[in-house]
Amino acid sequence: MKINVERGAFLKALSHVQSVVERRNTIPILSNVMVEAAKGQVKLTATDLDIEIVEALPADVLRNGAATAPAHMLYDIVRKLPDGAQVQVELLAGDSGRLQVSAGTVRFELACLPKEDFPQMAAGALPHRFRLAADDLKRLIDKTRFAISTEETRFYLNGIYVHAAKEEKAATLRAVATDGHRLARFELELPEGASDMPGVIVPRKTVAELRRLLDDADGAIEIALSDTKIQFAFNGVDLTSKLIDGTFPDYQRVIPSGNDKALSLEAKEFGLAVDRVSTISADKTRAVKLGIAKDKVTLTVVNPESGTATEELAANYSATPIEIGFNAKYVLDITGQVEGKSVRFLLSDAGSPTVIEDPDDLRTLYVLMPMRV
Amino acid sequence: MKINVERGAFLKALSHVQSVVERRNTIPILSNVMVEAAKGQVKLTATDLDIEIVEALPADVLRNGAATAPAHMLYDIVRKLPDGAQVQVELLAGDSGRLQVSAGTVRFELACLPKEDFPQMAAGALPHRFRLAADDLKRLIDKTRFAISTEETRFYLNGIYVHAAKEEKAATLRAVATDGHRLARFELELPEGASDMPGVIVPRKTVAELRRLLDDADGAIEIALSDTKIQFAFNGVDLTSKLIDGTFPDYQRVIPSGNDKALSLEAKEFGLAVDRVSTISADKTRAVKLGIAKDKVTLTVVNPESGTATEELAANYSATPIEIGFNAKYVLDITGQVEGKSVRFLLSDAGSPTVIEDPDDLRTLYVLMPMRV
Repeated sequence: MKINVERGAFLKALSHVQSVVERRNTIPILSNVMVEAAKGQVKLTATDLDIEIVEALPADVLRNGAATAPAHMLYDIVRKLPDGAQVQVELLAGDSGRLQVSAGTVRFELACLPKEDFPQMAAGALPHRFRLAADDLKRLIDKTRFAISTEETRFYLNGIYVHAAKEEKAATLRAVATDGHRLARFELELPEGASDMPGVIVPRKTVAELRRLLDDADGAIEIALSDTKIQFAFNGVDLTSKLIDGTFPDYQRVIPSGNDKALSLEAKEFGLAVDRVSTISADKTRAVKLGIAKDKVTLTVVNPESGTATEELAANYSATPIEIGFNAKYVLDITGQVEGKSVRFLLSDAGSPTVIEDPDDLRTLYVLMPMRV
Repeated sequence: MKINVERGAFLKALSHVQSVVERRNTIPILSNVMVEAAKGQVKLTATDLDIEIVEALPADVLRNGAATAPAHMLYDIVRKLPDGAQVQVELLAGDSGRLQVSAGTVRFELACLPKEDFPQMAAGALPHRFRLAADDLKRLIDKTRFAISTEETRFYLNGIYVHAAKEEKAATLRAVATDGHRLARFELELPEGASDMPGVIVPRKTVAELRRLLDDADGAIEIALSDTKIQFAFNGVDLTSKLIDGTFPDYQRVIPSGNDKALSLEAKEFGLAVDRVSTISADKTRAVKLGIAKDKVTLTVVNPESGTATEELAANYSATPIEIGFNAKYVLDITGQVEGKSVRFLLSDAGSPTVIEDPDDLRTLYVLMPMRV
């Protein structure tokens, strides 16, 4: 193998694929990226056995071939080469199998591992195919991922549940994440081709890798999936991932429909105030108490060790006064995602789940369990 | 105590003093800042028993008095108050002794500790007094601090040694730091009042706190010292610190004077190249080998596990060719401080200390021990 490739394009592709490679690997080849050159392009592949990212880019191929080299190191090397440099990558002859990377007067020789040992992920048949706009997919992730559970024992909650929902009103593609304390649900008009798709749970790491890749994406994302795998394709990148093999709970049961006490607050001001009063507690997981009365909310945080904090906010509220407590961090996660000017709480009582909405984005809905205060 | 103070000024002063407070303290009062109000100003004091920072700022004093409150928490609270707010700080009556901090509709009550328990640092007599321009003091620190030893067993190297040096040519104020592998020396014209000062070792943490404070300083810094303490005063801030009670080694002995092989390199290009070739070694403490020949330097790094890297640089050199190795990180620490276009090495042989100079700043001199390669 021997190629010439422009440093900027090579760097971008390497940055995309190397991220999936774990810092520590018990299987050495998993630290490597596969570099394959043929037909005027170079293809880079990296995997952690659960996720595979492949990216192809145009290159001047002087000799076809393939090699594997340490992914993070290759990325760091290319990153440190001068801007605009032409990079030559060549598999040196001989038993040693070393990959030479050079540009100008600088030359690296990297130890390789046999390309035959590089694990190939068999995507298998992916019968369900549809498209989403990059912006919609970004939003789907941003609005839900913070609610993904980190408890490994509840592995079926360690991802975003994506499924086709058919209700009286309309058919939608829904994304749901929950950790049992809070739930985030986002929905989109059901794209063509998705109506028969199975409900799938996309793992947390896949969500993170995909979201990172989407920073450089626009236009449409091609999505293909089966019961066990999902693939995202865009801009020359293919991300294929295993799905979580489990049953997502019946989340609709925990979304209350009869909450009739509506509270509206200025979203940004409310978020700042919650952040402010929770300064009194060393960790943000303490409860902030909302004392809700006619057109006024009083936030209170009490920390027996360090003191108390209170703040009053103007609000829009006309139902029976109520006192209710929430985990301050969970409230901030939600207000951080509100795009409009205001945020709306639909309350029942101090012990029941509360619905939180963004009136400017009714595709998104949050449910938050209260804390005793 | 009751004061009104402008949030921005209060925040800046708090940010200055709170930094010296350790995150964890076995003595609870050391987590607190002392707030004292009298005569139209508020004085903030924080200490870790080795360093004390005091800052006074104008305030509207409604009632004289003093109290202590958790330093980091008070800082975080004021930081989160709205920009431009007037902050009222009041010690509430009653046995509880709580400090109320309020602005607009937000109100905090912080648990206090008795102000009588707050440790006072007795600076004692500080007979030696002189002034340095803020820029000179910043430079003195920047050019030397990276060479401070972190080995606790060699406590007398855990700081910057500052002393008055009188040689044939001129009298200078010298700052020296070394960890036994490298040495950094910076000198200034001896300021008035410093000629009889004892040599003192300013501890690493004091150097760090001082440098941080100097970011907001210009003009002259008043320095006063004795055998055991040093004080820096500027812009309403007083920093008083204990000195390291030890004997700094006779550093002049390790600065070679007969090195006659002069090598000049473009400083920035050289730093980038060293950084580049050392990518091949997982940690930067590996040796980079300089193969120095007529007007050319070849950098080489070998890592038996991952491969080799070489780069050629144009240079200015006409003495006998030589091969010499250095710790790549140490070289980068030095090139990072070079301000001029070029960097000059004065070499003897592959086993002897090398002098490194910045031809545009002859007040600074570095000595670097080679590594075997």
